Amino acid sequence: MTERALQDLLDALRRLPGVGARSAQRMAFHLLQHDREGARRIAAALRAADEQVRHCERCHTFTEGSVCPICLDARRDARLLAVVETPADQAALERTGSFRGLYFVLMGRLSPLDGVGVRDIGIAPLLERANDAALEEVIVATSFTAEGEATAQLIAQALSARHQSHAAGPRCAGG
Amino acid sequence: MTERALQDLLDALRRLPGVGARSAQRMAFHLLQHDREGARRIAAALRAADEQVRHCERCHTFTEGSVCPICLDARRDARLLAVVETPADQAALERTGSFRGLYFVLMGRLSPLDGVGVRDIGIAPLLERANDAALEEVIVATSFTAEGEATAQLIAQALSARHQSHAAGPRCAGG
Repeated sequence: MTERALQDLLDALRRLPGVGARSAQRMAFHLLQHDREGARRIAAALRAADEQVRHCERCHTFTEGSVCPICLDARRDARLLAVVETPADQAALERTGSFRGLYFVLMGRLSPLDGVGVRDIGIAPLLERANDAALEEVIVATSFTAEGEATAQLIAQALSARHQSHAAGPRCAGG
Repeated sequence: MTERALQDLLDALRRLPGVGARSAQRMAFHLLQHDREGARRIAAALRAADEQVRHCERCHTFTEGSVCPICLDARRDARLLAVVETPADQAALERTGSFRGLYFVLMGRLSPLDGVGVRDIGIAPLLERANDAALEEVIVATSFTAEGEATAQLIAQALSARHQSHAAGPRCAGG
């Protein structure tokens, strides 16, 4: 497989996380030999998502409008805010059905080894969001990893520093 | 991630071999959050490959013309034909630089458990190809797996049956 369109496809598939040369070859072979319709569907879905998906103005998660359906849902408890790392974490928490508050999605976690610093995750918009007068409690639900814990600590510090300079503000609880 | 464009993307990515719900989520998140250009590149490469890539009329491998560059190369030894399972196997053999003959790519191997039978791999076009007067030796280089061995045996039988009904024909060697 050394011709242009094939080589381009192999190179492009390697941009997917966790996909090396061997997996890319297996994927390209499978799609071209057994699932041409799948190839067209993936191409169309990628294009549509790239065009339509943006970040919710309130919670930062992926959404197709300017504000996501959860943030727009008046039945959610606006006094509670859960801070999670990714939309997948948010989806997992939603599936439990036990949390009825709102979310803030960091879209990452501190990971100095991977070059993800304070500016790469949404701390500043979170502080902005935490100014909401309705908010009473922030639940930090980052992952139980070294990076997740460091992220949680950073958020707790940033929120409590904010606290001291404000007359009132939300209480911060570890997840 | 429950909106339409996102859900479509997750469903589409799961058509890739070896990609389940978790991997699809990780891929979608990565592309939308960190590599939008990658998303567009994969979409374009899939579309181009779907439009341009077809099978070589002589060896059955993926190619963009009607006959692939290797089959068109007059410097290759037309007396030798290596039968391999996939374009990846062909590429691996090419990288060794030790084989100067031509190829026939089956685009699969017998695998009754996966529903891949004799008609799904290119035995009939291989027999057609083996009629070439220049051909002296067929080297069956299928994989060292139960399915690969069964495929090799089937090819050897088919070629020798052909032999007996023709005055002359190529000799068949196991890979």
